[in-house]
Amino acid sequence: MTGQKHSAPPVYRSAAEARAAFRAGESRPTAGCAAGYTQANLISVPADWAYEMLLFCQRNPKPCPVLDVTDAGSWTTPLAPGADLRTDLPRYRVWEHGELLGEPTDVVGHWRADLVSFLIGCSFTFEWALADAGVPLRHIEQGRNVPMYVTERPCRPAGRLHGPMVVSMRPVPPEYLDDAIRESSLMPAVHGSPVHCGDPAGLGIADLGRPDFGDPVVLRSGDIPVFWACGVTPQAAVMASAPPFAITHAPGRMFVTDARDEQYRVA
Amino acid sequence: MTGQKHSAPPVYRSAAEARAAFRAGESRPTAGCAAGYTQANLISVPADWAYEMLLFCQRNPKPCPVLDVTDAGSWTTPLAPGADLRTDLPRYRVWEHGELLGEPTDVVGHWRADLVSFLIGCSFTFEWALADAGVPLRHIEQGRNVPMYVTERPCRPAGRLHGPMVVSMRPVPPEYLDDAIRESSLMPAVHGSPVHCGDPAGLGIADLGRPDFGDPVVLRSGDIPVFWACGVTPQAAVMASAPPFAITHAPGRMFVTDARDEQYRVA
Repeated sequence: MTGQKHSAPPVYRSAAEARAAFRAGESRPTAGCAAGYTQANLISVPADWAYEMLLFCQRNPKPCPVLDVTDAGSWTTPLAPGADLRTDLPRYRVWEHGELLGEPTDVVGHWRADLVSFLIGCSFTFEWALADAGVPLRHIEQGRNVPMYVTERPCRPAGRLHGPMVVSMRPVPPEYLDDAIRESSLMPAVHGSPVHCGDPAGLGIADLGRPDFGDPVVLRSGDIPVFWACGVTPQAAVMASAPPFAITHAPGRMFVTDARDEQYRVA
Repeated sequence: MTGQKHSAPPVYRSAAEARAAFRAGESRPTAGCAAGYTQANLISVPADWAYEMLLFCQRNPKPCPVLDVTDAGSWTTPLAPGADLRTDLPRYRVWEHGELLGEPTDVVGHWRADLVSFLIGCSFTFEWALADAGVPLRHIEQGRNVPMYVTERPCRPAGRLHGPMVVSMRPVPPEYLDDAIRESSLMPAVHGSPVHCGDPAGLGIADLGRPDFGDPVVLRSGDIPVFWACGVTPQAAVMASAPPFAITHAPGRMFVTDARDEQYRVA
């Protein structure tokens, strides 16, 4: 993976081009892919867990803003007509009773007729707005996946589903903090404003250099670590709550939709 | 009911005071009540319809922004600790198979252990922001409930639930149109920006003088009718889809929560 400035042209010009590459087996993280297109987290659970998952998302809207829910068994979504949720993400995770079975690049062989799929907003979506406001994106500059951390902040449970909030972290120079907060605030459907700025201990994070998902990112002198609620949170709920079966995206390797970012920007 | 300017002090100083009056039998509309407190639509359905109702709301976020969902049988919500959803609204509607059975001022005798209650954002919540921006509120000036109309715009169905979008209408002088759009846009959890401005025929509304719910409101010369998606939409889905049982608020007679408006304002 090569370094890339946030002002560099994005990898893949369109969402369709990105999905075609992932369908063909490419498995890279999607930060910096397909500028202006909304990205989404995937979580698929058996239909008898769907109400609790949807309620979990409703009760925890900062980490789990729902962009779409499929009918049981369906691998299509109006967010990307023609896309196949079983093949068009770079990498998946397959779960049984809360245990990770594997990380395949497609899940055709794992699909079930009773799976309800949730597409959940992703903070990669507002990164283009941050970049447009001049906010440097260190993980993209450094050619890395965004770092994600399991916090000690519990989500509000929903029936059998419970677990901690997961956050993504971006180092922000102090002079850009206002811009980063304002621009992300205007996009509540893709996590909105940060949940925390500054000392990672405030979220129970011991070491920024050892993220639970994604890659560590180097802070430059003066950078403030800024934390946004993260759509990997439902995966943490799968680990904690152990439904019999689930499929998710691999952290940082998202579903790139045809929906434009502006659609999720208020005012 | 007496006329009241939008700049007049609100009826009831707090949400708790409003709820106590409604619990004691007062049944007035809640527009202009308890300044600064978030108001909510109520829809309670049997548990085996709850997933479809939650999905219907997720698929139609402009009319149905969900603020809270109770556990089955519960009449309490963290949005107003100590409140009783069975008694603390001014007036209710009780439905069987899509037919209106009655409009009691409490539903203690109708409550069921399998009822899941949805609290849905209400545009009365952003009226204080409109008033602060100087936007006149004609229905409050005229001492009336806001007018609401069933449109010809269908909601996206969810399983057995389907129905048309309902809108509320406020006449806005042209010089305040920008303010009204901006201020409501910043509060997406209480319906956000208008869905339509101007000619009512664009929504299939034949006669502004004959609303489907609430009271007709007189437009002053030059006023533009501005339409916001309305939380009565789930009631229209109940009428169209005929679940065996449902309880709702009576249109315009909302649940007044302890949550402050600012909580639902982005940026």
